[in-house]
Amino acid sequence: MSRHYRSQSVSQLGIALFTAAGAGHHSAEATVASLVTSSLMGHDSHGVLRIPEYLDAIAAGAIVATAPVEVERTGPATAIVDCGQGLGAVGAENVVQAAIEIVREQRTACVITRRCNHVGRLGAWVQLAADHGLVALASCNSPQHGHFVLPWGGREGRLSTNPIAYAIPTGGDPIVADFSTSVAPEGKLRFYRNQGKPVPDGWILDAAGQPTNDPNKFYGPPHGGILPLGGAAGHKGFALSLLVEILGSALAGVSSQDPITWGNGVWFTAIDPAAFCPLAEFRRLVDETIAYMKSSAPAPGFTEVLVPGELEFRTMRRREREGIPVDPTTLEGLKRHGRRLKIDVERFLEARGDA
Amino acid sequence: MSRHYRSQSVSQLGIALFTAAGAGHHSAEATVASLVTSSLMGHDSHGVLRIPEYLDAIAAGAIVATAPVEVERTGPATAIVDCGQGLGAVGAENVVQAAIEIVREQRTACVITRRCNHVGRLGAWVQLAADHGLVALASCNSPQHGHFVLPWGGREGRLSTNPIAYAIPTGGDPIVADFSTSVAPEGKLRFYRNQGKPVPDGWILDAAGQPTNDPNKFYGPPHGGILPLGGAAGHKGFALSLLVEILGSALAGVSSQDPITWGNGVWFTAIDPAAFCPLAEFRRLVDETIAYMKSSAPAPGFTEVLVPGELEFRTMRRREREGIPVDPTTLEGLKRHGRRLKIDVERFLEARGDA
Repeated sequence: MSRHYRSQSVSQLGIALFTAAGAGHHSAEATVASLVTSSLMGHDSHGVLRIPEYLDAIAAGAIVATAPVEVERTGPATAIVDCGQGLGAVGAENVVQAAIEIVREQRTACVITRRCNHVGRLGAWVQLAADHGLVALASCNSPQHGHFVLPWGGREGRLSTNPIAYAIPTGGDPIVADFSTSVAPEGKLRFYRNQGKPVPDGWILDAAGQPTNDPNKFYGPPHGGILPLGGAAGHKGFALSLLVEILGSALAGVSSQDPITWGNGVWFTAIDPAAFCPLAEFRRLVDETIAYMKSSAPAPGFTEVLVPGELEFRTMRRREREGIPVDPTTLEGLKRHGRRLKIDVERFLEARGDA
Repeated sequence: MSRHYRSQSVSQLGIALFTAAGAGHHSAEATVASLVTSSLMGHDSHGVLRIPEYLDAIAAGAIVATAPVEVERTGPATAIVDCGQGLGAVGAENVVQAAIEIVREQRTACVITRRCNHVGRLGAWVQLAADHGLVALASCNSPQHGHFVLPWGGREGRLSTNPIAYAIPTGGDPIVADFSTSVAPEGKLRFYRNQGKPVPDGWILDAAGQPTNDPNKFYGPPHGGILPLGGAAGHKGFALSLLVEILGSALAGVSSQDPITWGNGVWFTAIDPAAFCPLAEFRRLVDETIAYMKSSAPAPGFTEVLVPGELEFRTMRRREREGIPVDPTTLEGLKRHGRRLKIDVERFLEARGDA
C-alpha cells in the first residue's frame, strides 16, 4: 500500500539524495522538480519511483551526474544539445531553454539531443515552453533494448513506446498532451501481470503473432509485442512511432540499432504564436476552442469532455493538498540509498497518512 | 464501373478544363498534377474525382481561380501564406516553396495558411519538401460544417478528420505518411452505406452516443459521429485532432467556429536534416531503420511490414502503366464541365480498357 507524503518533503529528500550522489544543486533540483511534478499530476510511472532508479544508474555510471551539457547552435533556428549522459531532466531543461532563446529571435526553433538519459514525463518540457507563451511539440525514442512495440504487420518488436507530447498556452492551464504511440505502455502490462489479470483486447500479440490477453505471453520467453496505437488502423500508430524513431535517432546521426544502453533521443520544436496572431488573441481563440470541445454532450459512460492535461491539473491541485503516493518498493529504495549516502530519509518525510 | 485512362490524358484534359474555367496555366497545372498524382498513388478520394468538384466550386465562386497568393514573412523562420480562396494546390505549393526558402537560410521553418481551399492529399506537400532533402510535417483542419468527429467522451462532433502528414528523405522513395486522426474518414462511411454494409466495430456512435455498425445512424437525422483514432485509447486520437484544429485555426487567428464555408487551415514545418547530420548519412541511417522495420517477421494475415508510402509508390508504378480509374460520376462531371467550357472531353481521353 502506498503512503502519501507532502510533495515538498519528497522534493527536499530527493535533492539531498541527488546532491549526496554527486549532482550539483541545480541539477538535483531540476531532476527532482520534474519527478515530483509528475507524481503531483498523477503520472506516477514517471514520478518519484524514478528517484531510486536514477540513483542506481548514477551508482552504476549509466548516468554521469556531473556531466556538462553542451548546446551547439547548428543553424539560425536549430541546435543540438549534447547531454553527456547526464541527468535527463538537466538535458531536457537545456533543450527547452535553447528552444526559447532561439524562438525569441527566429519565431520557431528545432532542437534535438544526443547522449540524453531518460527525460521523465515528456509533457513537462512542452509545458515549460507553454508557460513562456509558446506552442511546443516534442517526441522521444528509446534504444533497441526497449523495442517491444510491433511495426504494423509484424510480430517482432522494432520500436519503443515512443511518446509524443505537445502543449498550447491558453488563458488558464495550458493544454498538455503526452501519450505513447503504442496502444499501451509496457508498465501497464506489468500492472496486469502483477494483478494476475488479462489485458484488454487489442493490446498485445504473442511470439507467434497471435492476439492474446495473457500478459505472460508478452513477457515470454519467447516474448511477444505491443501493438501500435490505432486498433484496426494500427498503421497510423506505426507511422507516428516511426516518425518519433527517426527524429530521435537518424536526425541525431545515430542508428536505430545503436547499442546505447539507456536514454532518450528527444526532438523538440517550439513556435511563437505571436508570429501569426497576437498572443492574447491566440489565448482567447484557444479558450474558445476548448469551450467548443467541452460543449459536446457527453457520451454514455462519460460525464464531460476533458481536454488533454485537464485531468492532470485537477490531480495536481488535489495532491498538493493530499500529498503524493510513494509505494513500498520506492520507499525501500529511498531508504537504501539514504543509508548508502548518509541521508536520514525518515527525517525528511512527514507521513500524511496511508493511501 | 470505373474506366482506366492514361494519367497523361487525364492531366491534359484537367489543365484544359481549369484554364478554360479561368485559372492561369501554372495554377491549372499545379492543381491537376496534385490530383492526378493522388489517383496514381491510389488515393482516389483525393484524386481526379475532385476535378469536377473544384470546377463546380470555381463556377459557384467558392474557389477564386485567379486569386493572387501572398506570402508574408512574419519572422526570420516563419511565414503566413494568404491563399485568397484560390485553388488549394496553388496555395499549398506556395507554402512548400516558402518553407524551402526559409529552411535554406534558417534550417527550420514554420508556415501556415489563411483563406486556403482544399489542398488535396496533404502527403503531396510534405513529399515535395522531402524531394528537396527536407524532413516535413504538416496538418490541416476543416471548418465547422465538417465537424463530424467526436471529441473523446462526447457524442456531438466538434472536429474534422484532421489529417497529419509527414515525409522523410531516404536513399530511395521518401517515407510519406498521411492519415486522418479519426478512426476512419467520412468517405469510407459513405462507401459502406452505398454498399448497404455495416461499418466495422469502433468507428461510429449514433446520435445518442451508442456504438453502432449502421452507417445510416451516422448520417441520421439526427446524425451521429465518427470516433477519434485509438479505440479504447481514443483520447490520444482526440489529442492529435485537437492539435491539428488549433494549428489550423487559432494559430492563424481564426475561430474554430468561423463560418468559412470551405477550406483547410494548413500548418507546415520543415527541417533540414543537414543541420544535425550530413544528408547522405541521414539518408543511409533512415534506410537502415526502414530495413530494420521490414526485418520483423510478418504477423499472421500479413506478408510483410510496409513503411508509410511504400504501398502508394508501388500503386503509382502500376497505375503509370495501367492507367488511373475514373468512376462514372466523375466522368459525367468532366463531360458536363466540358460542354459548359467548350472542351472536347472525349478527344483528351484515350480509354485503356475497363477496370
